[in-house]
Amino acid sequence: MARQLSIAVDQSVYDPNVKPTQQALAQIEQAGAAGADLLLLKELHNGPYFCQRQSTAEFDRATVLDQANLQLLCDAARKANVVVVSSLFERRQSGLYHNTAVVIDRDGSVAGKYRKMHIPDDPGYHEKFYFTPGDTGFRPIDTSIGRLGVLICWDQWFPEAARLMALAGAEVLLYPTAIGYDPVDPEDEQSRQLQAWQTVQRGHAVANGLPIAVANRCGFEQDPGGSSGIEFWGHSFVCGPQGEFLAHAEHNKPELLLAQIDLERSESVRRIWPFLRDRRIDQYGDLLKRSID
Amino acid sequence: MARQLSIAVDQSVYDPNVKPTQQALAQIEQAGAAGADLLLLKELHNGPYFCQRQSTAEFDRATVLDQANLQLLCDAARKANVVVVSSLFERRQSGLYHNTAVVIDRDGSVAGKYRKMHIPDDPGYHEKFYFTPGDTGFRPIDTSIGRLGVLICWDQWFPEAARLMALAGAEVLLYPTAIGYDPVDPEDEQSRQLQAWQTVQRGHAVANGLPIAVANRCGFEQDPGGSSGIEFWGHSFVCGPQGEFLAHAEHNKPELLLAQIDLERSESVRRIWPFLRDRRIDQYGDLLKRSID
Repeated sequence: MARQLSIAVDQSVYDPNVKPTQQALAQIEQAGAAGADLLLLKELHNGPYFCQRQSTAEFDRATVLDQANLQLLCDAARKANVVVVSSLFERRQSGLYHNTAVVIDRDGSVAGKYRKMHIPDDPGYHEKFYFTPGDTGFRPIDTSIGRLGVLICWDQWFPEAARLMALAGAEVLLYPTAIGYDPVDPEDEQSRQLQAWQTVQRGHAVANGLPIAVANRCGFEQDPGGSSGIEFWGHSFVCGPQGEFLAHAEHNKPELLLAQIDLERSESVRRIWPFLRDRRIDQYGDLLKRSID
Repeated sequence: MARQLSIAVDQSVYDPNVKPTQQALAQIEQAGAAGADLLLLKELHNGPYFCQRQSTAEFDRATVLDQANLQLLCDAARKANVVVVSSLFERRQSGLYHNTAVVIDRDGSVAGKYRKMHIPDDPGYHEKFYFTPGDTGFRPIDTSIGRLGVLICWDQWFPEAARLMALAGAEVLLYPTAIGYDPVDPEDEQSRQLQAWQTVQRGHAVANGLPIAVANRCGFEQDPGGSSGIEFWGHSFVCGPQGEFLAHAEHNKPELLLAQIDLERSESVRRIWPFLRDRRIDQYGDLLKRSID
């Protein structure tokens, strides 16, 4: 018995001339009009990817995630009858900030939050300066359309995160993302990075028998700090529980990517490939170590 | 500074007219002549894939893995100056059998053993009938050419196995394999399975910044039990630490696949993608549970 879920995935360019919340509100409306059950917004959709440099002034972008500050998104979700996975810069208290996904159910209520657990830090992505690693754990968020395994960007490289969401009953994994090339990297390296990024996430789908959706930015964003900037590579995608592509956006094309996933397909796949049956939990203890040395 | 390793990967058909050990000995000689440092043999290379049915008579194929029974392989490895990863049906004692990889160093000594930890069991692959799950743990095996993360077939679907090998310092992951289609599956399902199998392993390469080599059987093997048999799909491959293909065998072509890997490349990749730095070991405790319920 099929249990269809219609997903809309935001692949968009940051435009300083459009008010950021307005962009998200328009996308929610558009997703609703397209008949989507769920809209996955890109990472930190309410502004530029400000982590290219370290600047204390950027903390002004953060907001307390209380009902008042979420009201516009909640109203839009309710009007469009769409579950919205938003990705916001959270001010938790003075000196304490997170990279946080807020899930809003289609009735406009806040279904839950996930604070990014794995925080990157490399040239162009100074996230450890801005974000305290999350303390939510890897817990899926229950909504009217299913149990959502929301993770964020850097989390996508960690099989542990996907596995924990699957063990806790997530029915789909959702990744708001901001990733791109360093324009000075040679083309073959750029290609390997893009392929690796898709492959590791499709691998999580396979290892856990779960569909996955990934929303990435696209377009070039300059670094006010003067580095070469980031060419966000797009290639947002949705894949099924065998890692098979169901929908795939292009490199430099802003798009509201639409895909149908059948949540019952995971059950069939897990019956032919019962990996969860055979995990050697008696021998996994060292996964809790930093290094086995 | 490059540190090249030349790998030969056995993709061959089971031929009842050739004595199985003779086939392996010829391959070792061939790998040595090709200048390989290491030969990865296919899973259970010393015979047919006998697990298609449950039959107590098949236990006669197992051998005690003592020096006498390994001598031919050891001599061949020494003569060819090649590290050999063999895959054998081990009789440990009466009523206790394993699916075991034996690594023989290029001087002919036994460097170590790995007993398959994850055991499949599905139509055509009745391995739980034959093999007790391994008790070696996920420990890489040290050889004169590096620290080898040897895993076997079904292990390849488990990110935990790859991660534990990486944390323990494995420099390359090696998978002897016997996997194929059920000939009655439709073509699109066959294609998804093959892609999933490659993708999940390439994903381990990416998640751990490690090269991987996979040796698979090819060709059709009938099921003496009368089912539709297995079309072993070949597609043996070697990939680098970003999951990029370095060498790839075809579907139905027996081949000694050759590839060069640079073990120093992992260091560069791990510097740009330092996933091991950022693992949330404080939050991974539930990986030791069967289910989070």
